[in-house]
Amino acid sequence: MKGNKKRAKKAGLAPGTLVHIGEQKIDKPRITLIDYDQESCQEKELKKVEECFPFKITPSVSWINIDGLHDVKVIEKIGARYDVSSLVLEDILHTTQRPKMEDHDSYMYVVLKMIRYDDQQAGITMEQISLILRDTMVISFQESVGDVFDAVRERIRNATLRIRKMGADYLLYALIDSIVDHYFIVLEKLGENIEVLQEQVAENPTEDLLHQIHKLKREVILLRKVIWPLRELVGNLQRSESELIRESTEMFLKDVYDHIFQVIDTTETYREMVSGLLDIYLSSISNRMNAVMKVLTIIATIFIPLTFIAGIYGMNFEYMPELKYKWAYPTVWLVMLVTGIIMLIFFRKRKWL
Amino acid sequence: MKGNKKRAKKAGLAPGTLVHIGEQKIDKPRITLIDYDQESCQEKELKKVEECFPFKITPSVSWINIDGLHDVKVIEKIGARYDVSSLVLEDILHTTQRPKMEDHDSYMYVVLKMIRYDDQQAGITMEQISLILRDTMVISFQESVGDVFDAVRERIRNATLRIRKMGADYLLYALIDSIVDHYFIVLEKLGENIEVLQEQVAENPTEDLLHQIHKLKREVILLRKVIWPLRELVGNLQRSESELIRESTEMFLKDVYDHIFQVIDTTETYREMVSGLLDIYLSSISNRMNAVMKVLTIIATIFIPLTFIAGIYGMNFEYMPELKYKWAYPTVWLVMLVTGIIMLIFFRKRKWL
Amino acid sequence: MKGNKKRAKKAGLAPGTLVHIGEQKIDKPRITLIDYDQESCQEKELKKVEECFPFKITPSVSWINIDGLHDVKVIEKIGARYDVSSLVLEDILHTTQRPKMEDHDSYMYVVLKMIRYDDQQAGITMEQISLILRDTMVISFQESVGDVFDAVRERIRNATLRIRKMGADYLLYALIDSIVDHYFIVLEKLGENIEVLQEQVAENPTEDLLHQIHKLKREVILLRKVIWPLRELVGNLQRSESELIRESTEMFLKDVYDHIFQVIDTTETYREMVSGLLDIYLSSISNRMNAVMKVLTIIATIFIPLTFIAGIYGMNFEYMPELKYKWAYPTVWLVMLVTGIIMLIFFRKRKWL
Amino acid sequence: MKGNKKRAKKAGLAPGTLVHIGEQKIDKPRITLIDYDQESCQEKELKKVEECFPFKITPSVSWINIDGLHDVKVIEKIGARYDVSSLVLEDILHTTQRPKMEDHDSYMYVVLKMIRYDDQQAGITMEQISLILRDTMVISFQESVGDVFDAVRERIRNATLRIRKMGADYLLYALIDSIVDHYFIVLEKLGENIEVLQEQVAENPTEDLLHQIHKLKREVILLRKVIWPLRELVGNLQRSESELIRESTEMFLKDVYDHIFQVIDTTETYREMVSGLLDIYLSSISNRMNAVMKVLTIIATIFIPLTFIAGIYGMNFEYMPELKYKWAYPTVWLVMLVTGIIMLIFFRKRKWL
Amino acid sequence: MKGNKKRAKKAGLAPGTLVHIGEQKIDKPRITLIDYDQESCQEKELKKVEECFPFKITPSVSWINIDGLHDVKVIEKIGARYDVSSLVLEDILHTTQRPKMEDHDSYMYVVLKMIRYDDQQAGITMEQISLILRDTMVISFQESVGDVFDAVRERIRNATLRIRKMGADYLLYALIDSIVDHYFIVLEKLGENIEVLQEQVAENPTEDLLHQIHKLKREVILLRKVIWPLRELVGNLQRSESELIRESTEMFLKDVYDHIFQVIDTTETYREMVSGLLDIYLSSISNRMNAVMKVLTIIATIFIPLTFIAGIYGMNFEYMPELKYKWAYPTVWLVMLVTGIIMLIFFRKRKWL
Repeated sequence: MKGNKKRAKKAGLAPGTLVHIGEQKIDKPRITLIDYDQESCQEKELKKVEECFPFKITPSVSWINIDGLHDVKVIEKIGARYDVSSLVLEDILHTTQRPKMEDHDSYMYVVLKMIRYDDQQAGITMEQISLILRDTMVISFQESVGDVFDAVRERIRNATLRIRKMGADYLLYALIDSIVDHYFIVLEKLGENIEVLQEQVAENPTEDLLHQIHKLKREVILLRKVIWPLRELVGNLQRSESELIRESTEMFLKDVYDHIFQVIDTTETYREMVSGLLDIYLSSISNRMNAVMKVLTIIATIFIPLTFIAGIYGMNFEYMPELKYKWAYPTVWLVMLVTGIIMLIFFRKRKWL
Repeated sequence: MKGNKKRAKKAGLAPGTLVHIGEQKIDKPRITLIDYDQESCQEKELKKVEECFPFKITPSVSWINIDGLHDVKVIEKIGARYDVSSLVLEDILHTTQRPKMEDHDSYMYVVLKMIRYDDQQAGITMEQISLILRDTMVISFQESVGDVFDAVRERIRNATLRIRKMGADYLLYALIDSIVDHYFIVLEKLGENIEVLQEQVAENPTEDLLHQIHKLKREVILLRKVIWPLRELVGNLQRSESELIRESTEMFLKDVYDHIFQVIDTTETYREMVSGLLDIYLSSISNRMNAVMKVLTIIATIFIPLTFIAGIYGMNFEYMPELKYKWAYPTVWLVMLVTGIIMLIFFRKRKWL
Repeated sequence: MKGNKKRAKKAGLAPGTLVHIGEQKIDKPRITLIDYDQESCQEKELKKVEECFPFKITPSVSWINIDGLHDVKVIEKIGARYDVSSLVLEDILHTTQRPKMEDHDSYMYVVLKMIRYDDQQAGITMEQISLILRDTMVISFQESVGDVFDAVRERIRNATLRIRKMGADYLLYALIDSIVDHYFIVLEKLGENIEVLQEQVAENPTEDLLHQIHKLKREVILLRKVIWPLRELVGNLQRSESELIRESTEMFLKDVYDHIFQVIDTTETYREMVSGLLDIYLSSISNRMNAVMKVLTIIATIFIPLTFIAGIYGMNFEYMPELKYKWAYPTVWLVMLVTGIIMLIFFRKRKWL
Repeated sequence: MKGNKKRAKKAGLAPGTLVHIGEQKIDKPRITLIDYDQESCQEKELKKVEECFPFKITPSVSWINIDGLHDVKVIEKIGARYDVSSLVLEDILHTTQRPKMEDHDSYMYVVLKMIRYDDQQAGITMEQISLILRDTMVISFQESVGDVFDAVRERIRNATLRIRKMGADYLLYALIDSIVDHYFIVLEKLGENIEVLQEQVAENPTEDLLHQIHKLKREVILLRKVIWPLRELVGNLQRSESELIRESTEMFLKDVYDHIFQVIDTTETYREMVSGLLDIYLSSISNRMNAVMKVLTIIATIFIPLTFIAGIYGMNFEYMPELKYKWAYPTVWLVMLVTGIIMLIFFRKRKWL
Repeated sequence: MKGNKKRAKKAGLAPGTLVHIGEQKIDKPRITLIDYDQESCQEKELKKVEECFPFKITPSVSWINIDGLHDVKVIEKIGARYDVSSLVLEDILHTTQRPKMEDHDSYMYVVLKMIRYDDQQAGITMEQISLILRDTMVISFQESVGDVFDAVRERIRNATLRIRKMGADYLLYALIDSIVDHYFIVLEKLGENIEVLQEQVAENPTEDLLHQIHKLKREVILLRKVIWPLRELVGNLQRSESELIRESTEMFLKDVYDHIFQVIDTTETYREMVSGLLDIYLSSISNRMNAVMKVLTIIATIFIPLTFIAGIYGMNFEYMPELKYKWAYPTVWLVMLVTGIIMLIFFRKRKWL
């Protein structure tokens, strides 16, 4: 909901006005560059954004990664140098985008969500990743340092791997693929949480568990919201007739597409399971209430009549013949015992005991 | 529901009969005009509707805004001067329209809902906005003074901004965009309400909260009803082959289209969250009932048997040997204490304490 | 459900066998005729069905209205004279049709439901209207006298109105439009009922209210059943390439189409509201039960321990030293008071009081 | 579920292996033949399946009806004589088919479910009907003697009716139509059951009623399962470009198609009503529980404090001044009366009485 | 969920990296070969994967079956010999695939799930089957020894059956068909479980039953997840324009397609039944709670007032005239009896007894 709050601040501004919408997560934007072709590969961290400008025209594949979106000037300079439309720059800065892809002839714009499971908060954290694909270049924008791309970087460094022989479109695919792969890790974690809750809820349905269930539910809703558009995004990439996506990469995009379907399937399954958790929770409470009621009923039903009998012979009437009989007291005890036993038999027959 | 009530009054009238359906919110219609091109920009408030008629033929972009729909004659005159079909005029006056766009060759008709969050009533207020797009002109109709267009007016006044260089279709876009932007503000408010309720419901589920939840639910239903058709509206505008929409504006309409999708996504998420609130509410009540029952059961289960024992020795039989024993009284106390402790252990084992 | 009962009687008969299926609501069919063109307009009630036969060939627009469907012969004669297929005649007589339109080259057949809110039964009554459109003629069939067409008749009588200048297809449109307009009146009534129930249910959830909610629910289900096919019906009319529908009328059909969408939207909203009513009902009962339980628990929890103390000193042991103490009795009172106050504080802390 | 059990037995067999899957309902298959054209009509019961073979080439319409599917040889012989594919024969024998139609150039295969309401079991019985349409011939296969086709037979015997003038495709239509007509009878019965249950549930929600509701629910689910594919079946027949279906019959198929839509509509309505029944049931139980709780609370809340007062003056302290007062006893009575009345007023105010 | 856990391990690796994802179920992969044409048929178990390589070029149909996927080298060698893409090999090894088919010109890849009902665990076990179809060859990969293909093997051994005359595409069909046939067996088992639970739940709703219901629910969700994509898979195979699927086989694929529809229908029906089980469960608990409450209320309501009366005459006031009356004691008994009987009549009237 934070996204909306920030989003609202922008209402009424002219389109293409560059304002960063989202939390500022780091001090200063950090720009890194990896430039590689089949023979060589160089990595460096840039101090000024202008340092990456020469790479526009080199034939080798360049990957510029920008961590931190709050410095609007950096984004503006990149936009100017690489002919990126101001509406796209606006989308990069507004971190509440719906995953989508846009084909702008000379470049492609892809925006999607990177999710990670935060063990400390025991919840999902979400970050927006924008990717610009040009002929020999991928520019990636993220909100904070730290991402899921380390494995891709590792593969680029290894000269023998396929990625070194392929173009920028393959790099784009590899980045999307590693984001989708992280969805599986988050889903795994959610799956474990569901299993743990399933056992706890049945054992002891506390209110705290109810809140955990609802937290899970909200997370699954959130996941659905970012995953469903992803399917369309990758489908569009795959079917795109742009020359930026070579035919050799399409097969790999098909593969990501299948993975996204698996993610969707699992998310939907989890959704049904979480709503099943709520059913179990409510039934458990009902069951427990039923048990409490039974105890009360058994105790009350046995002792109330007995107390009544005792009350009778506690009356102070002068003419109560039973009070004088020698065997009256033991007889009353006997009557009480028999009454109690009859009650117990009755409860046993009703399966309350 | 008020809309329907008014709507019903019109049943059976000939189509195109101009009757204002809706609440009269202001005394007298107020007509304002902004006329601008790249060089100049003039604003004035018109006393008579006829004053705006000359602007039909000027090449500069004219924006005529009419606040107040109850004076049918004003609408009729504008309809006559600008060749607007009587069916469209009827739609402008009936403030229960479903958002839609209609292409009438020489002009386009767009009707949609402007929503605002009313802090005093703590609820959403909704107003119908009708927009007529002609070659160099936009006419906007609203029910009352006060709208969400101030930011657009500000941008028009600023000669350096893009809006001054673009045509009437861009103005139409800017108006729709600022309406959609206000949806985010309302959603933000709803989101905050949901969060506040979420905490309150878990803490203390009063009946008042139940009504707040149902109010929220109705508002989300209402929102969905006006937002979903919006998607089709803007989609149609964008795909429209009319010459009124220039190609340069299509890109901006695509942008609004994406925003509407975000609004829809968020609304659907809120919808699920509100129905989750109801679940939490019901579970909280069940939990509380369970707690009440436990207290009753613990007290009753401990004291009913003890009271029975006391009742036994309150009987007035002549031959009750225990009554004579010296240690009988303390023994009874001991028995009672032990019984009570056994009960407490039993409850602890069942996790009721 | 009555419709089905009657419908079942017909099972196995040859198709096109004319049997009236529905309730006979009036004694004798009543046939009225309105014949008009731009200059003149004549209305008369016909004694015999044959009297309307000459109007087949006149160039003026003729509207024949038949109230009462149980006299199969009347329908047969009309069918023979105006070349109406026996399957269509069958559909006219079976008053359980799903709204639909059929294009039979020389004529069009439209069947839909006219609904009215019956204040006495506090419910919706439904009647089937069949319309046959020929080149210069509309024949309408209804089950009983009394309809929603009076406003249309009034407009025909007024020589200055558009209807007098248009053809039979415009008359067809006007009839459908006035039926759809009546849907708004019924919806308004339903909306009021929902609002009234909403308040009553929250205040005092009686079983009678539950039945009213379920009655409302059934009525909304019924409405949906007759409204959804209407959309397709009018859509087909509008898109129809038949020469019977002139181009000038299409614009008006588009208008009805929009109205039907509003009706559908409102019905769906009501549907969600009615199911919300059920939620409120159930929550209210739970809340009330909770309140009852609290009262019981408070009273029992305070007095059961006190009664136990009183019981202790009602025992008749000979050796009970407290009984002899002078301050014992006031002390016991004090103990009881303190116990009671502690209990009350406990309940207050738990927010039960 | 029986169907599945049998179906499972066949797992792994080669396709086209003829094994009867379903219950054997009669001793010996019974084969009847009706052969008719406009002039003549002959009916006979055949002793051997070979007797019907000559009718393959006659120009008159032949209807061969086979009751009982367990004698695989009979089916095989017919399959061989009339060139029916082994996969189709397999489908005829497996009585768990989904309604469908298949166009095999020289013949058409239609399989659907005939349902009847069994008053003794108070439930729906279902039987599979397979129909083979050839140029001048319809072969129908059913599981047991007794069907819904008697009205069709009657019409064939009557030389004046349309059926005698039409071809085999019209006969196919007539058979399907009479099956669909029977659906209305079953729906009528279900509708009555729903109405009866609706009243009973509100009056006294016994567990037996719960099971009746769930039985109804299962039956409605079953109905949906056989009705929805029917729509596609008849739609395909109608749109079929096969020469086996003459143009004159298409109009009648359209009519059946409309009927199926009515059946679907009614089934969906019943489905919602049955789930409404469950809501009423649960609310009724809650209401009753609430009533029980109120009685308990009223009695307990009135008498527990009074019993406490009585307990006080049943104590045996030596120094209890009240015991000696002359007016103490009536005063206590008065206090008790007032307390009781205050309680009653409190309950009345809360609307518990 | 296990699948996801393993799947997560792979995150970030380059596509086409062969890693087995799934449980290792057997020690050593087992490779068997069946090679047949119309005249001859040979079966053998291969010690080394290379032994099957010569069969690539024989015109007879070869079926290579590999049990066990953990030995990545075996899969690699087969991939190299039969030109299978590394992405496909990856899919074979990742046993979390969604059922799908892929057409790679020279071969087709089909992956689906084989399910079996495990009586010991009383649950469904699932295994991934990958099938590669080449011109004269089918290669099948499964996770463990033991499958549902024995019936197919038996049919291959029998020289007279159709399978010996058909090509590899028919073998593919036969394998898919026997997998789908096993779905019916599992569904049958699930159906029986549902029926058993239905009776037990109504009789005695224990918490154990609740878990069984939720286990069933999860299994039905799982089934849906693997069955729905199957429909698309077989539909694609059928519509495929690849030369690998001969026209003669399409008819059989249509047959499997129909079977899958039956499986889907039954699964959906079971889904509704299982959710019906939950309703019955909750209603049963409510009913039982209601019964418990009634017993408590009856006992308490009868005896609390009687105990109060007894308490009155247990008071020790000196001036209590009734205590002296001779008939007081029997009169009190009488009053108590009458009070009790009135109570019982009241309960009977409310149908609580």
